[in-house]
Order: sequence, then C-alpha cells, then structure tokens
Amino acid sequence: MVSVPGGISYNARLMHAVTYQLKQKDSESSAQLGRVTTPHGSFDTPAFMPVGTQASVKGLQPTQVDGLGAQIILSNTYHLMLRPGSPLVKEMGGLHKWMRWDKPILTDSGGFQVFSLSDINRIGEDGVTFRSHLDGQLIELTPERSMRVQNELGADIIMAFDDCPPSGGIRDSGVWLGKERPAGMPQEDRAGVLGSGSGQDEDDEPESRPQTPDPGPRLSPMTRHAVAVEDYPARVKLANERTVRWLDRCVKAHERPDEQGLFGIVQGGTDLVARTWCAQHVTQHDLPGFAIGGVAVGEGYDEIKKVVQHTAPLLPEDRPRYLMGVGYERDILMAVRAGVDMFDCVLPTRNGRNGCAFTPTGQIRLKNARFAEDSSVLDEDCDCPACGGGFTRSYLRHLFMAQEMLGPILVSAHNIRHFQRYLLDIRRAIAQNDWSLIQRCWPVAVKRR
Amino acid sequence: MVSVPGGISYNARLMHAVTYQLKQKDSESSAQLGRVTTPHGSFDTPAFMPVGTQASVKGLQPTQVDGLGAQIILSNTYHLMLRPGSPLVKEMGGLHKWMRWDKPILTDSGGFQVFSLSDINRIGEDGVTFRSHLDGQLIELTPERSMRVQNELGADIIMAFDDCPPSGGIRDSGVWLGKERPAGMPQEDRAGVLGSGSGQDEDDEPESRPQTPDPGPRLSPMTRHAVAVEDYPARVKLANERTVRWLDRCVKAHERPDEQGLFGIVQGGTDLVARTWCAQHVTQHDLPGFAIGGVAVGEGYDEIKKVVQHTAPLLPEDRPRYLMGVGYERDILMAVRAGVDMFDCVLPTRNGRNGCAFTPTGQIRLKNARFAEDSSVLDEDCDCPACGGGFTRSYLRHLFMAQEMLGPILVSAHNIRHFQRYLLDIRRAIAQNDWSLIQRCWPVAVKRR
Repeated sequence: MVSVPGGISYNARLMHAVTYQLKQKDSESSAQLGRVTTPHGSFDTPAFMPVGTQASVKGLQPTQVDGLGAQIILSNTYHLMLRPGSPLVKEMGGLHKWMRWDKPILTDSGGFQVFSLSDINRIGEDGVTFRSHLDGQLIELTPERSMRVQNELGADIIMAFDDCPPSGGIRDSGVWLGKERPAGMPQEDRAGVLGSGSGQDEDDEPESRPQTPDPGPRLSPMTRHAVAVEDYPARVKLANERTVRWLDRCVKAHERPDEQGLFGIVQGGTDLVARTWCAQHVTQHDLPGFAIGGVAVGEGYDEIKKVVQHTAPLLPEDRPRYLMGVGYERDILMAVRAGVDMFDCVLPTRNGRNGCAFTPTGQIRLKNARFAEDSSVLDEDCDCPACGGGFTRSYLRHLFMAQEMLGPILVSAHNIRHFQRYLLDIRRAIAQNDWSLIQRCWPVAVKRR
Repeated sequence: MVSVPGGISYNARLMHAVTYQLKQKDSESSAQLGRVTTPHGSFDTPAFMPVGTQASVKGLQPTQVDGLGAQIILSNTYHLMLRPGSPLVKEMGGLHKWMRWDKPILTDSGGFQVFSLSDINRIGEDGVTFRSHLDGQLIELTPERSMRVQNELGADIIMAFDDCPPSGGIRDSGVWLGKERPAGMPQEDRAGVLGSGSGQDEDDEPESRPQTPDPGPRLSPMTRHAVAVEDYPARVKLANERTVRWLDRCVKAHERPDEQGLFGIVQGGTDLVARTWCAQHVTQHDLPGFAIGGVAVGEGYDEIKKVVQHTAPLLPEDRPRYLMGVGYERDILMAVRAGVDMFDCVLPTRNGRNGCAFTPTGQIRLKNARFAEDSSVLDEDCDCPACGGGFTRSYLRHLFMAQEMLGPILVSAHNIRHFQRYLLDIRRAIAQNDWSLIQRCWPVAVKRR
C-alpha cells in the first residue's frame, strides 16, 4: 500500500469507476491476462480499441463493431469538442446513448490533435490556445477544459491532458521550444510539442496513403516538420514537469470520478531517466489506470521497445497499462510481453479505407492488378463479414477501383477483426502459457524486418 | 393464345427462365398482386428494386439489402462492361456469385448510360459508338453486344437494347436528331436520344443535390441540354421502329433464354399513338416480361400518368410489367393502380448519401440546423437499422456534418427500407382490397402537389 497526498491508497479500489482484475500472469514474460470493469461493462485485456474519432468507427454500425469482437472503443475529445460540441452530446444523453454504443468508451484528452490538426496560437503553463481546423475559431484547451469536455462526453475512461515531448529517436530534427508562436512560422513547425500517442486520430491524414509496417522512423504529423532544438533534455524535462502539474489539475477538475476513470500519462520521450521520473510522479496519484504516452510519434521499433520495456514495469501491476497509439502486430506483441494491457490505433480503419488489408503474413494492397482475378478471400482463417461473407479479393479490388463505399466498409471490418482475432490469440497464448500459437498463426508479429 | 413468328405462344411458359404468377387482382383498379419466379428465386409484385450500379448497392452489404426486404436488385450493364468488364465477371462465376447476392438480379441494357455518361461518337442503325467516360476508350454497343455482356454478367432478367426518344413534355427544348456528331457540339447536347428509364444510374450525378419531389418537369442528364428538334413525331417514329428492329436482334442474340429472361421495352415518348404502335410490335415476341421505357426523363407527373395509364393495359396481363426508373411514392401508386408490377430508382440510395431521408410525410434534409438537437428517429414506425437502432436525427445530422460514412450508410438503408415498407403496404392494400391503409399511413403518396 502506497500513501499519496490526501491519504488515498492504491487499495481503495471501490472508489474507482474503473477497476482491473488480474487473472493470470505469463511465466516467461511480463504479459498478463486481465479484465477491466467500467460502468458500461467489462473488457478483456490485453485489449485493442478501434478508433471512432467523431463518435463513429468509420463505416461501421456499433452493432457491427461489437460483432467484430471489439469490447471498448476510443473517441477523440478534440473533434467532438469542435463538432458538435460536448454540451450537445451531454444534452443528448452522453456519448454512449448518442452514438448507440453501450459498451466501454475511452476518450483522449485532445492534446495530440490540438498539435497535429489545429493552428496553435499560444502555449503556456495554463494550456494551449489554438484555432479550430474547421472554422478558425479561437479556442483554449487547458487541463480543466479537457476534463469538463470529457465529463460532458461521458466516456468510461478519460485521459489526462499532458505535454508530450518529441521522440529522442528523431532528435536531429528536433522540436520548437517556444511559448509564443514566432511570426511567420508554418503551422507544422510547431508539431511534436504536446499530446500523447500517435495515429489516434482518424482524420489527421485523410488523404494519406496506407501505413505499411516497413519504415525506418515513422513520421507522424507531429514530427514531420519539426524544427531544430538546442536542448532536447531540457524540453523533455519541461514536458515532464508540466505533465505532472497538469495531472494535478486534471485530478482536481475531474467532476465524475465515480462514473469515469481518469488515467494518468507518463511522458519522457526516449530518455529513460525522464520516463522513470515521470512515472514516479504520475503514479503518486491513486488513479484507476496509467498510460505510456509520447511513443510511436516517429521513432522506430527498437526505440519504442526500449521505452516500453523500461516504462511498463514502473506502472502499478494492479492497474491497467495503456500504450497510446500503438500499433502494428509486432509492436503489440512486444508491449504485451512487457506488461501492457491496452492498445489503440487507427491502422485497421485508415488502411482499410485505402484498400490495404491486414493478413497474418502482412498487409496486401487490393488495388494491385494481381488481385483482379483472385478468387480467394482476404484470409481463409478469418470470420469477418468480408472473409466469412465470401467476398473475393477480385470483388474487393473492383469496389476500390470503382470507388464503391462497400470496399472501405468491408476491409475496415476485416482489419478490425484481424486485430481482435490477434488479441484473442495473444490472450489465449497467455492463458495456455504457450506462445507457439502466435509463432504459428501470426508470422507478421514475429518476423524480422 | 397469340401466335407470333416462329410459332411460339404466350402459353409456352415453361420455356421461360422467368415466370409470372398472378395472385390477385384489385377490384377498384388495375393493380395486381403477383409473384415472379427466376432461376435465383422469387419476388413479390408490385416490387421495388434498389439499384446496385457497379455490382454494389452503395454502402450496404448484400445481407443488409436482403434484411431491408429487397427481393431483387438492379445492376448497370454500362458500368460493369467498362469496369471490370463482363468477361472477368463471367470468369469469377457471374454477377450473383461475385457480388454475393444469390437472389434475383436485373441488368439494364446499357443504352441509357451510353447517352447520359459517355462521349457519343456515332449513332446508327447498327448501334452506338462512344468513348468510355473512364478512360476515353472507343467502344461500340449494339443489341448483340448488349446481349453478350448481359449473358456474361448472368442476371436473371436482362433488358433489350432500345432507342429511347425524349419526352414530349419537354418538346420545346427538343433533341438532336443526327447520326454523326456535329463538330464542336458539346457532349450534353446529344443527350436524350436513346436508352430507357431515368435515374437508374447511381453515378451519373455523383455530386448532385438530393432529388426532391417537387418539380415542374424533372430534368435528367438526358434532357437538360437538349437542342432544338424540328420534327418530334418523326424522331419518335424512328426510335420506335428502331426499338422494334433492335428487339428482334436482341431476341436472336440472346444465348441463355433458359437461364435469363429477356424483357422487351415499349417506347413512344408521350405520343400515345406511338406507344400503342410500339406495344403492339414489341409484344409480338413471346417474352417473359415487358417494360415501359422513356418515362420520367424530364416530364412531369401528369405526363407520366398519361403514358403509364395508356401503355400498361397494352402489355400482356400474364407477364410482369416494369416501369423503368420510377420513382417517387405518388408515381409508384399511380402506376401500380394502372397495372405495373416492377419499379427501380436510385432515389433511396442517392438521396440517402446526400442526407435526405424519406418519411411517410415527405423527405427531410438532415443537414438542416433544426435537427441538431432532435432526439427522435427518422420515422417512429420504421424498423430499419437507423430507426430500429435508435439513431437520432441529431446524431445522423452530426454524421453528415462531419462527413462520416456511417451517415450515408444509415440513411441509404432507411430509404431502401422506406420503399420496401411502402411496397409491402401496397401489396397488403391489394390483398385486403383496402386502399385506406395507403391513405392513412403514406400521406406522401396521396397528397396533392
């Protein structure tokens, strides 16, 4: 039992809206099988959350998302704050009722999107002032505002508003340190300063090509135009300290702790000392879960691995650990074995919309001419509406060539099911204490690059 | 029993791939309840066919279309001929297997789209030469080619390749009569010369605003830029004679009469004498069904009514009568009472994609601000996935404002269900010999404009 200011202890679980039950620990790694319970039901961990940025998992009805095996989805505070606005969602009965999804929902804090999508006006200790990417309206987002918006949306799990420094893996491109925006500085040049995770947002790159699991460093909107920085450690230190101060404010501002669980976020970039410092401070709060943020914002697999393997053990074992914005099958396997319980990523739906289908041996691009007369389904072992429904690669390719909506719909459904089946097998591997299942059935997760 | 050239009689029903069973006649009108049987099952008439232009009812899986009550769908020969090409569809096992719809399918002949979408190069007695709207490739479509393509696609009901003159209702704008395209003549100026029905094609106006049931003359792509014509009756005469000659060639070229039923099409514009002449000649063929073409290509309700009420009785009572490209609820009711059995229209899906929802009292535009906080569903009596699923107008409006795919999906589903429920009630009215059901439940169908 760890004492924290205010005398609340980690054991006071009944106080929390969200609770974690550890069911089984793996014998050969830190992987753990568990179950998280929220006011809208439970979900099994390790879990993968499909992303429904604007209160909709793109192209799919909630009953279909449910049928694909998803037990919890993520929605984006930034988008819903701008359109239609959280007061309207609250008035309509909250996010669950409004979007017709009565299972658990997690909302992020909005920080990541403020920096990747909006026109930042000012960043300071109080918060961030930015212009809406929709209509140019000047809006301020602070820890208090993020909490109020998330309280109004009503998700089961809400995230702290944090400051997310850039990855050390792209240290040479660096980031902007300033408080005021330099005159004439392009919007993108300020990317990479704040916000957690990557790829959580379905709409930041609507016209982008599908993401493929190849890259050297993967460039997110947060990092692709980052400007030089003199003192990376100083920036990490500032972000960490601010993350901790902002978490204090989030905890104080959170008005529905008995209905919504607030997760703290550990920052620190790729600086392991900074990660340790941040984890120590963030976990001082008796929160129902903790996240590793600022990962997969441009760095490669090895850097992600280093940070996750270092940070996950610093988080309490009896609270779910959430690795924000990750990712590909191999990343997930590594993180699960480091003790991570929750994941989210836009890959299934974003790539699905672009005609890129996940399979156990890797992604395929359906627009490729070689699929024109391919009478096989995407994955013979898959039971999704596309594969189980008998839609051939030939037909799916036609849908994409003809720009038929049904193409994105079916491949998004398939990709979501792909990740749900993958997590199902990961949970099975932990339960049976036998990872050969993953070796055998998911070569994409274990192959060398 | 009527003798036709070749000695085949109307009673030789067992020869046909498609048969019609008359179940009940209305006592106060020519409405009739029936059932059409095809190699892929039966459908109840009067029937409304959703349109799946490119082998997909836009945004919906075939199982969903089935669930909405559709028993037969329409697909477009022109589009599939160009992409992916009928040989590929044939190689993949035919349209039913390829698109995963194992119930009846009807394909049109391609004529309407050739004139509304392509760049016509030459029109002659043999057929039409045009440039593909996709890649500019020069393509010839003749009665024989249309039959071969439709034989390869493998629909249960295939349509004759016909010449469709413009409606007399827009006689003052007229049409181009020429055989060769005059140099420098804009593409649209040749519209309105040939092809049956209107609005069968989901893609001819992808960016169009939703169609509303108001208009004076409704302008289709075929008529909106028609040029002056000197002699409308002469054009109708030519089209009629050609339609009859081309039908002869279609009948001869049709290679799968035991697996696919060929429907003849009656043209004649708004000239009732021409309609009579055409009907007499077209029905000389022992075909399993007959269509009224060239209606709803720009003329108003009264003109459509005049033509349909005149022409339907000229078609054999023991074969299904199909009114191509119609239409709104009031048009359908009028035509059913004139003895029509089959309808198709893109309205449910095209308007659905544009945020226009059909209700028993008329269409509503969901983008209208007054729906922002409207917590009611589209139609309290509807059992579609949108209404039955509890999606409010507020949420649906949000989906359209945020350009989320789920908006078009849900409203298309609702609109298809709207028309299926409407036809269900029409069949009920005939069966119970009580039209007060329509008066009571479908005010949109009986209200004056």
